[in-house]
Amino acid sequence: MTKAYHALEARFRRINVLSDIGGMLHWDMAAMMPDGATASRSEQLATLEVMGNELINDPALPDLLAAAADENLNDWQRANLFEMRREWVHGTAVPVDLVEKQSRAGTACEVAWRTARVDNDFAGLLPKLQTVLDLSIEAGQAKAAALNCSVYDALLDQYDPMMSCARIDTLFAELETFLPGFTAGVIDHQKSEPAPVRPQGPFPVEVQKQVGLYLMAAVGFDFDNGRLDVSHHPFCGGTPDDVRITTRYDEDDFTSAIMGVLHETGHAMYERGLPLDWRLQPVGKARGMTLHESQSLLVEMQACRSQDFLTWAGPVFKNAFGGADGAWSGDNLHRLYTRVEPGFIRVDADEVTYPAHVMMRYRLERALIEGDMKLADLPGAWREMMQKFLGITPPDDRTGCLQDIHWPSGAWGYFPTYTLGAMSAAQLFAAARDALPDLGANLASGDFGPLMAWLLRHVHGLGSSLSTDEILMQATGKPLGTDAFIAHLETRYGAKSG
Amino acid sequence: MTKAYHALEARFRRINVLSDIGGMLHWDMAAMMPDGATASRSEQLATLEVMGNELINDPALPDLLAAAADENLNDWQRANLFEMRREWVHGTAVPVDLVEKQSRAGTACEVAWRTARVDNDFAGLLPKLQTVLDLSIEAGQAKAAALNCSVYDALLDQYDPMMSCARIDTLFAELETFLPGFTAGVIDHQKSEPAPVRPQGPFPVEVQKQVGLYLMAAVGFDFDNGRLDVSHHPFCGGTPDDVRITTRYDEDDFTSAIMGVLHETGHAMYERGLPLDWRLQPVGKARGMTLHESQSLLVEMQACRSQDFLTWAGPVFKNAFGGADGAWSGDNLHRLYTRVEPGFIRVDADEVTYPAHVMMRYRLERALIEGDMKLADLPGAWREMMQKFLGITPPDDRTGCLQDIHWPSGAWGYFPTYTLGAMSAAQLFAAARDALPDLGANLASGDFGPLMAWLLRHVHGLGSSLSTDEILMQATGKPLGTDAFIAHLETRYGAKSG
Repeated sequence: MTKAYHALEARFRRINVLSDIGGMLHWDMAAMMPDGATASRSEQLATLEVMGNELINDPALPDLLAAAADENLNDWQRANLFEMRREWVHGTAVPVDLVEKQSRAGTACEVAWRTARVDNDFAGLLPKLQTVLDLSIEAGQAKAAALNCSVYDALLDQYDPMMSCARIDTLFAELETFLPGFTAGVIDHQKSEPAPVRPQGPFPVEVQKQVGLYLMAAVGFDFDNGRLDVSHHPFCGGTPDDVRITTRYDEDDFTSAIMGVLHETGHAMYERGLPLDWRLQPVGKARGMTLHESQSLLVEMQACRSQDFLTWAGPVFKNAFGGADGAWSGDNLHRLYTRVEPGFIRVDADEVTYPAHVMMRYRLERALIEGDMKLADLPGAWREMMQKFLGITPPDDRTGCLQDIHWPSGAWGYFPTYTLGAMSAAQLFAAARDALPDLGANLASGDFGPLMAWLLRHVHGLGSSLSTDEILMQATGKPLGTDAFIAHLETRYGAKSG
Repeated sequence: MTKAYHALEARFRRINVLSDIGGMLHWDMAAMMPDGATASRSEQLATLEVMGNELINDPALPDLLAAAADENLNDWQRANLFEMRREWVHGTAVPVDLVEKQSRAGTACEVAWRTARVDNDFAGLLPKLQTVLDLSIEAGQAKAAALNCSVYDALLDQYDPMMSCARIDTLFAELETFLPGFTAGVIDHQKSEPAPVRPQGPFPVEVQKQVGLYLMAAVGFDFDNGRLDVSHHPFCGGTPDDVRITTRYDEDDFTSAIMGVLHETGHAMYERGLPLDWRLQPVGKARGMTLHESQSLLVEMQACRSQDFLTWAGPVFKNAFGGADGAWSGDNLHRLYTRVEPGFIRVDADEVTYPAHVMMRYRLERALIEGDMKLADLPGAWREMMQKFLGITPPDDRTGCLQDIHWPSGAWGYFPTYTLGAMSAAQLFAAARDALPDLGANLASGDFGPLMAWLLRHVHGLGSSLSTDEILMQATGKPLGTDAFIAHLETRYGAKSG
């Protein structure tokens, strides 16, 4: 008998359809929607959230969850039940009116942020951002009580189940020990090399788009189940059967849009590769944002910034954009794409300085959430932290604390997953390289097939049937750690790599 | 006390938010969605339909509707309550599992139709189309029992409340008496005139789009609350605060995309002008498809095919597309846009032969719904009917019974509203001309302001607070009739118009 379990499946299916619909509306809001529709879209998203919340707060659920635990379930069903319970804990911890307030405040603040960023107007955004922060703290407190953890850990758990500040502090401390000296050494070393030749633009948007589509296809993006569009902040949205990725174009610089597309394609491959038999069930979803980010960074940083791949991509760029041969050689592109330089903008950062962006945001958001800092003091604290971590000070808030969409949209506790993802990416790529002796040669011919097949088997196709650490253990032999990431940086950027 | 009434408002607000979300997903499906996402989109749309249906089938509603009737309501609230009851009758007549089946079958058949039309494959579409028809009849029977009317009248009532076959038969009989002789006379007369010069293409898609956007702005389209995109079948979708219109481009012929855009802009102006205070309430919605079509045809046929407007538009086209002066003169464009010629494709038809397309579809769909004809016999019956009404026979089903999206998507009983809309458009435009002595001069300078202000006051802003006939009575002094339409055709196309 699996009657209770199947009743749960039907309920979670509906909950997840509503959540998928929300995913489509979010994509539309970022990529298509005219600004005047903000209020009505906000109501649509809030209604979906509230109805989803009502479904998970159905008083019948606790009995069904208890009854299903005694039923004869197979491994995937049992994992699904475990994830149902997790979603139930999160979904019932927060009162429905707070869920609705969060949804509305997040949508309104996200839209206001678009203008505030352009106008460099932190003060103008402050009241809306304060509301979003206060509501996130209130929700975090409710979840902390349910999960028996700290508020920050509770927020973190939404994005990366079972991660904790204690573990992040340990991992980040290892990076903070290693990175400053290493970064200074790399910058010194790169000064001694010939500077990479920067291809000259303009790079027409339409041509960049065509190159992006070509590279997406090479990685394996399924255009029958996805699209590429434009938004202020690149992201991967939609649903596993309709993956919508976005980028933004700069006609003076082709590097960022194209690497951005490859990054989002990594996310897309994960979504698309989730287990087909478990669509719309909790166990069929991506494991968490750390593994999600590992997939985008594995494609972008590990595979596509390798000299192997860039040797193949050079002629693609040259055909598309024209210009001098030297700029498009694999060697030059590799030097260009592995150039290390502290900068203000996280999404434009190289992989050596990127962790500093994340670690400072982690400290700032923890201070804000734990009440150790006022939101009004964020711009100043940001500048100080930037100086401490990267030795530079942004000239304005546009290039400072207003650059990211996360906080305005309500995603507090999300930032650490970027660097945890970078570590996981290095760990997974090292294991893939061990398992696939021809991996370098594959990438050098634009063939992502073997790599994607390996990822499908070891990551994508597992959905949430295992924990992040279990997935990493099975695939790499170790739980999440900094070793592979540090080894990767040393190999790619260390003096010995030349 | 308006406690029951306000409880109803809250419930209908949620129902209509779900319906608006469905509107956005429908637009996305037609304009953006990759084909591989059909099954998952179908489930999303079905879930929204079912959840909306569950809300309207809430056992508390009948008591609330009864209690609200005794409350102290103002006129708009009372009209809203009347419309709530109407939606409740429609929504409760059909069992929820049938609603879900209809939604899924309609989505699947609509997608299959896109391919079937291109492949000229009626036989391939037949099984899916039969399912859609059978489910529509089943739903129509349930509604007929609730509304105490015939099945066809029940289907019609979904699109044009209180319209009936009896009334359509009378109105269409008047047209069938008038049109054949008149059409033959116009064609003869036009043969005696110099043939219009057809501007030579190609007309680049991007330029057509820019011209379309320019004309939309002239009519008054609010781009802060709407967009223009591309789809197989042009339509106006989205929501009143986010109106999404679509068109399709032909680089060899600029006429159809641009008039299509103007047509959909007429729909958009209606949606956008609906009473702001009654958003998401039944009374705040458009009155029905007859009045909706009257607004698109008023803009396209009455205003934008007038010599006044085309004299202003000629230089716009000339600037955009270049080419010989003569082709872009107001006089030539007017002759081009009022050319009468029987053709196979409804959406490309001139306004004199258009009613024949509608009247034959009305007969065919009635025969199918009333069981007087088998669906497998449709292609043959279509050819016969086309010969009878327009004296021509389409060479294939692509240009025959596969041309329209309506039946595959489940919109049976919809077609008559096109011609009822053309009549209403003529009636409203004649009244607007009487009320606005400068209307011709306004259009000749591209100024739609006074016309749109008049329509906002007499049609758009009334929502569903009055019936179609009441709206027409207040605006024009008469209920829906054929007089103004016939007078319009005689003035524009009669020999005396020269």
